[in-house]
Amino acid sequence: MDLYSGYINKLIDELAALPGIGGKSAQRLAFYIIGMSPARVRKLSETILSAKEHVCYCHECQNLTDSELCPICSNPSRDKSTIMVVENPRDLAAYERTGKYNGLYHVLHGAISPMLGVGPGDIKLKELIERLRGDQVKEVIIATNSNLEGETTAMYISKLIRPAGVKTTRIASGVPVGGDLEYIDEMTLLRALEGRTEM
Amino acid sequence: MDLYSGYINKLIDELAALPGIGGKSAQRLAFYIIGMSPARVRKLSETILSAKEHVCYCHECQNLTDSELCPICSNPSRDKSTIMVVENPRDLAAYERTGKYNGLYHVLHGAISPMLGVGPGDIKLKELIERLRGDQVKEVIIATNSNLEGETTAMYISKLIRPAGVKTTRIASGVPVGGDLEYIDEMTLLRALEGRTEM
Repeated sequence: MDLYSGYINKLIDELAALPGIGGKSAQRLAFYIIGMSPARVRKLSETILSAKEHVCYCHECQNLTDSELCPICSNPSRDKSTIMVVENPRDLAAYERTGKYNGLYHVLHGAISPMLGVGPGDIKLKELIERLRGDQVKEVIIATNSNLEGETTAMYISKLIRPAGVKTTRIASGVPVGGDLEYIDEMTLLRALEGRTEM
Repeated sequence: MDLYSGYINKLIDELAALPGIGGKSAQRLAFYIIGMSPARVRKLSETILSAKEHVCYCHECQNLTDSELCPICSNPSRDKSTIMVVENPRDLAAYERTGKYNGLYHVLHGAISPMLGVGPGDIKLKELIERLRGDQVKEVIIATNSNLEGETTAMYISKLIRPAGVKTTRIASGVPVGGDLEYIDEMTLLRALEGRTEM
């Protein structure tokens, strides 16, 4: 159906290819963008380009940044003896929002998934091993997701770094705070039971 | 919280300013865009710019197009004696998807809303009146939304075009097809009752 001009259709297609944006949202966004002032459209277009152009991986933790080291790695008040391993920058952001973790991070940019064809060589593991040379790092906290890929990755990492002799821990899995037991899946309930701690 | 580079934050802000995109989706989209190939990012950025640059209003119906007349107005097989008035191009697209309407359209690009400060002069009403000169048009079907603004606009238009002596109709309001009466609001039920037709 060719209701609109080719330019609108192309824009709708480009937007619909982004994650979480369906056909209807893409249409709505496209019309909104066309209705914005030319200056705002130019700004949007340029911001996209310059983000892609300037953003790179932090040389230490592989988080996204625009300089050699990210703000966390270059912060002298962070505890450099602890590294929390996360799958992606959004997970890092989630832990930063708690405001209670003062160590460093390591961003894998993925998780091992034989199903999706993601092997250990496809995520930033080599860079993690590099960071464990010397004896500055005392603990590696594995905070990959609590799903099949996350658990597989956690197991793999714990074996991989055993030779380095660094303490390796895994974040707890259980009933979320405020969670109502009757609505929680059995796997989580079992994990919560297995992981019970003395009061 | 300045976890990422300024470029990422700027991109997140730009994306979050679009309709229907919250903070979390904006963050997810920004990371996705940064992870796309440079060529795809360039294409996205350019598509946005060129859509804004080339898309204009159809000289007849005010739909968005990239030439003087939109594909519907320039289609010789459409019935030029009927004009359906809609609030925006998405509503036009919705009626086109039915495949059963063969007349022309008129896109108002808004609805009269004293609450939002949108008056009759702010929507494409002057252009509608222009199109009723001559006696090609026999019927104007008002298909504005079935809410306060849409109804106000419909009333206003019907009064406005009365002097032109053109038949004016309003699309029916009632229970949607497949709708379960028990879940339908009272206003709709009353409308359906008022608008009942003989079987």
